[in-house]
Amino acid sequence: MSEKITIYDIAKKLNITAATVSRALNNSPKIKDSTKKLVLETAASMNYKQNKLALALKSGRSNNIGVIVPRIDSNFFASVIRGIEEELYSHGYQVIICQTHENPKRENENLYTLIDAQVDGILMSVTDVTSENDGAFRNVLEKNVPLIFFDRSKHIDGVSSVTINDFKGGYIATKQLISQGCKYIAHLSGDLSLEIFKNRFLGYKQALLDNGIQFNEKYVIQSKSSVEAGKNAINILLELETPPDAIFSSSDFAALGAIQELRDRNISIPQEFCVAGFSNEPFTKFMELSITSVDQSPLEMGRMSARVFLEQAGKTDTIKIEKKVVLAPELHIRKSTSRINL
Amino acid sequence: MSEKITIYDIAKKLNITAATVSRALNNSPKIKDSTKKLVLETAASMNYKQNKLALALKSGRSNNIGVIVPRIDSNFFASVIRGIEEELYSHGYQVIICQTHENPKRENENLYTLIDAQVDGILMSVTDVTSENDGAFRNVLEKNVPLIFFDRSKHIDGVSSVTINDFKGGYIATKQLISQGCKYIAHLSGDLSLEIFKNRFLGYKQALLDNGIQFNEKYVIQSKSSVEAGKNAINILLELETPPDAIFSSSDFAALGAIQELRDRNISIPQEFCVAGFSNEPFTKFMELSITSVDQSPLEMGRMSARVFLEQAGKTDTIKIEKKVVLAPELHIRKSTSRINL
Repeated sequence: MSEKITIYDIAKKLNITAATVSRALNNSPKIKDSTKKLVLETAASMNYKQNKLALALKSGRSNNIGVIVPRIDSNFFASVIRGIEEELYSHGYQVIICQTHENPKRENENLYTLIDAQVDGILMSVTDVTSENDGAFRNVLEKNVPLIFFDRSKHIDGVSSVTINDFKGGYIATKQLISQGCKYIAHLSGDLSLEIFKNRFLGYKQALLDNGIQFNEKYVIQSKSSVEAGKNAINILLELETPPDAIFSSSDFAALGAIQELRDRNISIPQEFCVAGFSNEPFTKFMELSITSVDQSPLEMGRMSARVFLEQAGKTDTIKIEKKVVLAPELHIRKSTSRINL
Repeated sequence: MSEKITIYDIAKKLNITAATVSRALNNSPKIKDSTKKLVLETAASMNYKQNKLALALKSGRSNNIGVIVPRIDSNFFASVIRGIEEELYSHGYQVIICQTHENPKRENENLYTLIDAQVDGILMSVTDVTSENDGAFRNVLEKNVPLIFFDRSKHIDGVSSVTINDFKGGYIATKQLISQGCKYIAHLSGDLSLEIFKNRFLGYKQALLDNGIQFNEKYVIQSKSSVEAGKNAINILLELETPPDAIFSSSDFAALGAIQELRDRNISIPQEFCVAGFSNEPFTKFMELSITSVDQSPLEMGRMSARVFLEQAGKTDTIKIEKKVVLAPELHIRKSTSRINL
């Protein structure tokens, strides 16, 4: 194990004070150029390495960016992170990632962990349950660390966000189901207190109204983003007096569960029942019965979030300017909603 | 923005030196208990918050653990990380994640980023290409930070690892193909300079020999872990004079690509051609033509890696003890290799 060289060793060698060495290494105007040169040369010859963390404490910059996501095992979030990394890496930033597992307490801890790790910015998507983390968010802003929400955002003064037009996403998916002749269209929603799920629901509702189909609140099932939740939803929906003939799901995982349950009951897709999902997870394309889904341009969302961060980085005067970027969703029509074969 | 309270403010209020305040806050034996009590009470009343990072610099502990993986958008790595988090969270550790994208330069940068962020340990899976990062690995060990490899490991003195028995995984998958009557079994391997891919290949080869099937090196295609690579491999293999009638792939993604290409050529699976993969990615189970795959117990691998870290944490005397944990693989037999219907 090598003995670490400190500024005290350099000071001793040059017979000057440690404070002078420190100031020289940090390019203080109080130190003569000749002294700076001497200290730098001596430090190099002694193989001295400045602790980047100690530097971060002084300069307030670490060149690390924190990203917080609900889960990493979702192609959507993994792709957003890839976009963030692609954009920031060329600017010399390293990305470190934390996941909340949809737990507000973990979200709170992640925020403090990243601040303690001296990140220069935090890009995040909030948990799908209402949280009381306003104190933790405020703590980030008070430290002058830019905070940017992507996909799932909260209304906080001074915080920018990059989202997609979820209303439109819900609208175009539902309209496609209507175009296939579906008349009793159910909706698997997430937690409607979250903007993204509320807007997908509102888009669904508007598409029904615009096409002369009555909205039936029994057809709206609030469910988690899981295969199991999709199966359960089918069990509830098929018990209704007039069971639905289609589902627009706010989650691809729930859409997949619905399809599996429909098949177990020998209900043919898309002939008897159409299913559309949201997020364009890779499995929706890979499956033999491919699933129609709304693409959210995750790579672009990541790149855009990174660019919004770069605009704010280090500019304390502009940090309170909110920027709201809204990307357009794109519907990928596949077998699960194509009664006339594509 | 709130003005930050420092030890100087506390010192001024109590009319003692900042050094005394600092020693009291850090529970130094040089300070009288009565003074410590006074300082702590005053600090609390002034709403003083110690900078955790500054504390980390002093104590050498941050309670953060770094995890480095090739990619997060793989169910395997995401599940290992979940296992690590489950085990460490109850011990008060937060996990921060970096990805290499299979790039040795990024791997190197990740190692330094995490050390700079003062992590207490690094748990990682190396890139799938040979790297020259021995200096970066040594730097971690010289800082007395436990380094533990999982799944993909390297031989480095003093570094523990948690892997599965890849040889056995390759063996049981190949044997299952033989049991279905397949006689010309090809293998899609990863980079054979990596232990895991070499061992899967050796298990495949041994299963052939043990069952009286000659090994044919033309049947071994070194390919990346991607759908595209699997498609390309089929194009090469079907051009051979005696094309194979089965594939054991070291990657589920390559297995999926092979299946897609076989279907495009109207070759029926499993009747004419059997395909087995490795990793038990969720899509292998979700597909209508489900794919046989070797499960690597990722959750257990993550928990075990975390436990190996906990054994080493803070014990500088034991840190040079290597521990090699090898988990057993499990074959999940599905439609893609079941000629007699299951």
